[in-house]
Amino acid sequence: MHARVELADMAADVLARVRDRAPRVHCITNTVAQNYTANMLLAAGAVPSMTISPEEIVSFIASADALLVNLGTFDAERRAAIDVALGAVGAARMPWVLDPVFIENSPGRAQFARELLARGPTAVRLNAAEFAPLFGGDPADEAASQVAKACATVVALTGGTDTVTDGGRRVVIGNGHALMGEVTAMGCAGSALLCAALGVETDAWLAAVAAIAALGVAGEIAGLTARGPGSFAGAIIDALHGLDRATLHARIKVA
Amino acid sequence: MHARVELADMAADVLARVRDRAPRVHCITNTVAQNYTANMLLAAGAVPSMTISPEEIVSFIASADALLVNLGTFDAERRAAIDVALGAVGAARMPWVLDPVFIENSPGRAQFARELLARGPTAVRLNAAEFAPLFGGDPADEAASQVAKACATVVALTGGTDTVTDGGRRVVIGNGHALMGEVTAMGCAGSALLCAALGVETDAWLAAVAAIAALGVAGEIAGLTARGPGSFAGAIIDALHGLDRATLHARIKVA
Amino acid sequence: MHARVELADMAADVLARVRDRAPRVHCITNTVAQNYTANMLLAAGAVPSMTISPEEIVSFIASADALLVNLGTFDAERRAAIDVALGAVGAARMPWVLDPVFIENSPGRAQFARELLARGPTAVRLNAAEFAPLFGGDPADEAASQVAKACATVVALTGGTDTVTDGGRRVVIGNGHALMGEVTAMGCAGSALLCAALGVETDAWLAAVAAIAALGVAGEIAGLTARGPGSFAGAIIDALHGLDRATLHARIKVA
Repeated sequence: MHARVELADMAADVLARVRDRAPRVHCITNTVAQNYTANMLLAAGAVPSMTISPEEIVSFIASADALLVNLGTFDAERRAAIDVALGAVGAARMPWVLDPVFIENSPGRAQFARELLARGPTAVRLNAAEFAPLFGGDPADEAASQVAKACATVVALTGGTDTVTDGGRRVVIGNGHALMGEVTAMGCAGSALLCAALGVETDAWLAAVAAIAALGVAGEIAGLTARGPGSFAGAIIDALHGLDRATLHARIKVA
Repeated sequence: MHARVELADMAADVLARVRDRAPRVHCITNTVAQNYTANMLLAAGAVPSMTISPEEIVSFIASADALLVNLGTFDAERRAAIDVALGAVGAARMPWVLDPVFIENSPGRAQFARELLARGPTAVRLNAAEFAPLFGGDPADEAASQVAKACATVVALTGGTDTVTDGGRRVVIGNGHALMGEVTAMGCAGSALLCAALGVETDAWLAAVAAIAALGVAGEIAGLTARGPGSFAGAIIDALHGLDRATLHARIKVA
Repeated sequence: MHARVELADMAADVLARVRDRAPRVHCITNTVAQNYTANMLLAAGAVPSMTISPEEIVSFIASADALLVNLGTFDAERRAAIDVALGAVGAARMPWVLDPVFIENSPGRAQFARELLARGPTAVRLNAAEFAPLFGGDPADEAASQVAKACATVVALTGGTDTVTDGGRRVVIGNGHALMGEVTAMGCAGSALLCAALGVETDAWLAAVAAIAALGVAGEIAGLTARGPGSFAGAIIDALHGLDRATLHARIKVA
């Protein structure tokens, strides 16, 4: 339904706007992922902020362009911060992304993720193992479209290939590299990039396609020179930083 | 007592099993070390998880293969998490490793480490400065064997050379590189690797030998190309990721 | 007023003393910056410690050489730790550095920073956006000198160029690289290096010049080979680790 060239162009437009406008993404995320997430956002041209202090999170969100809610660390302080933050985001009609990290390992975390889903995230990025505890059912492409429609959100289901759907439109992105699964917080960084794209693009499906495709293409480029996951972790940041329209056109794989 | 070739083969077997079975290591560790520890575990083929939330740590441990207890940040939340986690580990008869980071700088932390030692870790990894506050006495090879026997644990005393002993068996490993001491959390990562090995090998002494030797050999390989500690930090992850039986045979140094 | 060659020599002397004496810098800093700050300190030859537990922070500070107070995460636990730490530092007459990260985004954080300023930091490192909320007024060179004099502190105002002043002496350092602004926690790491220099040099202005110039020169060297911010983050650590007197002489730019 969407021509490959058209999607490459739209993704390149979104990335160019991120670099131009430098949206600030406020991240409520786990301590494992914070540093890498911040560096990935900076490489894309966005600006990260990370505080979870309840006293000041509203002030930080007031001047932000998007919010990331990542459940990678599920402590009481972060849960309180998320509640305050979603109140501020709702008032500001700001886009926000839910990343339900590792909910398959903890019923309490899964329950909390379902409550957050009911608060209407602009998009959800997750992997196959996290799909059933959040949405019920198997993580097939068709199921992703159904839950996206039912929840009125965009679902970005990432893995060997990445499916992005808003219920109506659906694209399967075939970019990426096996080493992306061997660097911690790579998925978290993808969710943060999705926030950056939402900060400059009101079509949430398109923002998600742009962010996921850009990270996948950057991963392929990093894979050309990396000698393992250690060098890959830096190389994908380099590649994202240098990613241009011609490279997106040459490499993007959509179906 | 153990031939060099035999140990290299046994270490290679343990590493192969880690890659094959992908044991999950639950890490209660400090925020300085979390990201690097996770990436080191992934490079070895293991799966990290890191939550310290008391509500869900039992659930995470139920599906884990080993537990790391690292005292690098000694806050109230982590102390509570450790207590809950050790209860769950005891019930599951799961291996766990104590890493008494920096206890020489804090009497309270040293006292807490001694209480944890009394709860029977499968292994303890520490450096020379941490030896006396935990065990009393000087960190000589003979002393390490004595305390390992007295505490019915495996002691991995790392530094210029690394001593691994269970009281009966003792080996001194001569691999490693000076830059390993100039990257933060390298010791923490070594303790995490030891957990990964314990997740697939019931002989805790052998698991410790495999983990410590593998990290030392990876460090030597990283040292061949690193231009300083910044590039070394990534290169040792690359080297661990690519480490094969032939390289272990060629490089392992034991006495 | 200070000849370029003279400053290069003094900076090289300070760095040599850091490597020789390995001062321990206790860092109360945010979780985004902890790992990178620790690695930067190690690369310079200093020793990092990071605990914020109120029970043991006094014990850690008792054997430290300098304290970093970074406001990058403004949670209740860190605020309490800062209060306890400053009490211990005052008793020990130990140098300490205030880094008022992101105070332009939060009135509460800015107010807290002003209270800390009243407790007499040895030096303050900040960027232009943080200047007005802390000191009032525009971040011009002349204003930096005035507030340094009024507050009896050293001000290191970093950005495209870096101004270091104690009210009497003022130098503008022209080293650095654009990618330094695209790696998270680079400013935080600069503040930590300033602490390391203060641990071996009682002239706080000179310590600040040495730290800021060294980081800027290391950044220039890293920029020669980096392919983007990912590789730059490691390369600047390599460059700082290998920085020698001849390179400082050849590259330092002061006005």
